[in-house]
Amino acid sequence: MQPSGVITITTDFGHKGPFVGVMKGVIISRFRDAKVIDLTHDIPAQWPPEAGFWVRRSYKYFPPGTVHLAIVDPGVGTERDILIAEYDQHYFMAPDNGLLGRMLDHAEGAAVYKLDMDALQRLDISPPSNTFHGRDVFAPIAAELAAGNTTPVCIASATDTWTPAWVDEPEVTAGKVTGSIITVDAFGNLISNIDAPLLENIRSPVAHIAGHDIPFRNTYGNVRPGEYLALINSFDVLEVAKAESSAAEGLGVERGAPVTVSAGS
Amino acid sequence: MQPSGVITITTDFGHKGPFVGVMKGVIISRFRDAKVIDLTHDIPAQWPPEAGFWVRRSYKYFPPGTVHLAIVDPGVGTERDILIAEYDQHYFMAPDNGLLGRMLDHAEGAAVYKLDMDALQRLDISPPSNTFHGRDVFAPIAAELAAGNTTPVCIASATDTWTPAWVDEPEVTAGKVTGSIITVDAFGNLISNIDAPLLENIRSPVAHIAGHDIPFRNTYGNVRPGEYLALINSFDVLEVAKAESSAAEGLGVERGAPVTVSAGS
Amino acid sequence: MQPSGVITITTDFGHKGPFVGVMKGVIISRFRDAKVIDLTHDIPAQWPPEAGFWVRRSYKYFPPGTVHLAIVDPGVGTERDILIAEYDQHYFMAPDNGLLGRMLDHAEGAAVYKLDMDALQRLDISPPSNTFHGRDVFAPIAAELAAGNTTPVCIASATDTWTPAWVDEPEVTAGKVTGSIITVDAFGNLISNIDAPLLENIRSPVAHIAGHDIPFRNTYGNVRPGEYLALINSFDVLEVAKAESSAAEGLGVERGAPVTVSAGS
Repeated sequence: MQPSGVITITTDFGHKGPFVGVMKGVIISRFRDAKVIDLTHDIPAQWPPEAGFWVRRSYKYFPPGTVHLAIVDPGVGTERDILIAEYDQHYFMAPDNGLLGRMLDHAEGAAVYKLDMDALQRLDISPPSNTFHGRDVFAPIAAELAAGNTTPVCIASATDTWTPAWVDEPEVTAGKVTGSIITVDAFGNLISNIDAPLLENIRSPVAHIAGHDIPFRNTYGNVRPGEYLALINSFDVLEVAKAESSAAEGLGVERGAPVTVSAGS
Repeated sequence: MQPSGVITITTDFGHKGPFVGVMKGVIISRFRDAKVIDLTHDIPAQWPPEAGFWVRRSYKYFPPGTVHLAIVDPGVGTERDILIAEYDQHYFMAPDNGLLGRMLDHAEGAAVYKLDMDALQRLDISPPSNTFHGRDVFAPIAAELAAGNTTPVCIASATDTWTPAWVDEPEVTAGKVTGSIITVDAFGNLISNIDAPLLENIRSPVAHIAGHDIPFRNTYGNVRPGEYLALINSFDVLEVAKAESSAAEGLGVERGAPVTVSAGS
Repeated sequence: MQPSGVITITTDFGHKGPFVGVMKGVIISRFRDAKVIDLTHDIPAQWPPEAGFWVRRSYKYFPPGTVHLAIVDPGVGTERDILIAEYDQHYFMAPDNGLLGRMLDHAEGAAVYKLDMDALQRLDISPPSNTFHGRDVFAPIAAELAAGNTTPVCIASATDTWTPAWVDEPEVTAGKVTGSIITVDAFGNLISNIDAPLLENIRSPVAHIAGHDIPFRNTYGNVRPGEYLALINSFDVLEVAKAESSAAEGLGVERGAPVTVSAGS
């Protein structure tokens, strides 16, 4: 795989403090031409599923050969492994805590590895701190991968096991699909883990959430301000929205809430 | 116009989720050397006037030939047009919903266009989703403009009409100017749409807001902590501040509030 | 010193408004190949100590020859000086208000200067506004330093005095060290100004804060979720944390709170 020189970073570090900034400093100290792009740093603290959800659905908008770092890491400094995956012409690197679980379950043809911590020394990377592997392990390894100075087989051991995802797959029965709200965006739109193809065979689908029955529309502007709508969003999953308002507030719903789609009358 | 290769992005997407990040991925996938700079992503949800205000007052700090994207777009996926303007050696691109209205009203010599959606195919851009034109339309078009691969006349139709601005111009009468608070910054400073030249003929001006009469000073450090002051700020508009504190909280005032300046005694 | 072309920015400007964005526009207008990295913009408004703390502990993760801007500047537009320091192969630039005080107190071999405002004209920099020196002074000067177009001796006067730091040094007595919480990160971890070496001679150390006695551990995963721990963090200072939770909320403690370490039993 030819690296693109691009690295994306997804974390739960927020914007207080220099945590993401020093990761970028470490990256460009090793690879001056790296192009580092923030995916988001507002993953809810220590909740890997949302990071995995967004990385899985965003990576294809970046050039082939991009390295995607995702760091939501309550087990930092313990014996947890670090995964590196090569899939669909992209690299992915994350703690082995379920973050990448769902993507890897579906990643036909992926090569998955566990980082060999002894490789740090071979790449002239200092022994890491106990609490900030983003800076001390992920950043320098990503720089070396993105620069084409190393490859997963040189620094990691192939594996075919990983920690499973924390959130169940949607449950599909005849004429009905039940999934979960994975995240809420800045507008209060509720974004679920129900992929569009799961709904293909449901006639006149209606979304059921928090006691409301919500019709499907193509876009927000198709209903009046303040009305609810369900839609297949731009990442090809079910979303529940309230036009020009917040569905999360309106319905009193947060991530984790169940949502069901069934045939309307 | 010679493109600078620089693109600025202004949105109401916030920092949750990968929305701005994937726009950058789309841009560099098409134009590897693009330099993308965030202006702000904290425009109040679905309120175009603040985006237009900041773009209009910020663009000149970027190199000539920069492409400025501004996306506050409640009408995404409906029939609303997309404007591209060439003005003062910069490109501007935004939904035609009033966002650029005020700037274009004053933009002597601007060339204004409406994007021809058929141009997407000619530029090898996939048909857009219904809900995320930032990623699917604005980002790839900006990349092509910034790379110098296309120009507005190739992809858009000239127009001399656009949706008007949502906020009225300040009202100027003899010895008195009344405008609106357009935005509140991170310090709680209240920033208005009253341009400095409008105040030139007012002797010993005093700002009136929320029942307070507030004197003009040159800078925050010229009053004691906790005192209010009015000033012409660094973007050349009237600002009401409270030294080392928040005028927004102190006065109980938000965006949209009226503010008047008249001659003092 | 050979500039790296990298500039870091640390401010209390937050993310609302175009303030940081226009600084970057000014920088690349002067130096197209500048690499600008945000350290953080969420310093508490007008509280220089946290900015100085993070710059001091983060700079070494960037390439030698980097220019570090730190702007928390309640005195902008008044007679306060602007410091430029060359230390340990890095440049630092900040208002002379105590922000850099603690670092400079310990900066063996540093060369410290006060900016000569007349130098602006020589570098073809417009007279600054009264309220936004980040854009009008810091950004263009940083661009010229990072581009190697000027050096501190050309634009500033050597000095050996600076405004002292706002927060006292930790107090060290036999078997006991008392310091302050300097900042709280996005997880609610409490980060102090007590450097690890100060604790070397304390046997079985215990941290005392808000009436709690908290044992030392190596990392968050070494205690059960919800338990408190003290640790030497990745920036080599004492941190008090609550595993998978917020110590700040749990203890009801904010920045400024005292924390003491003494020998355990």
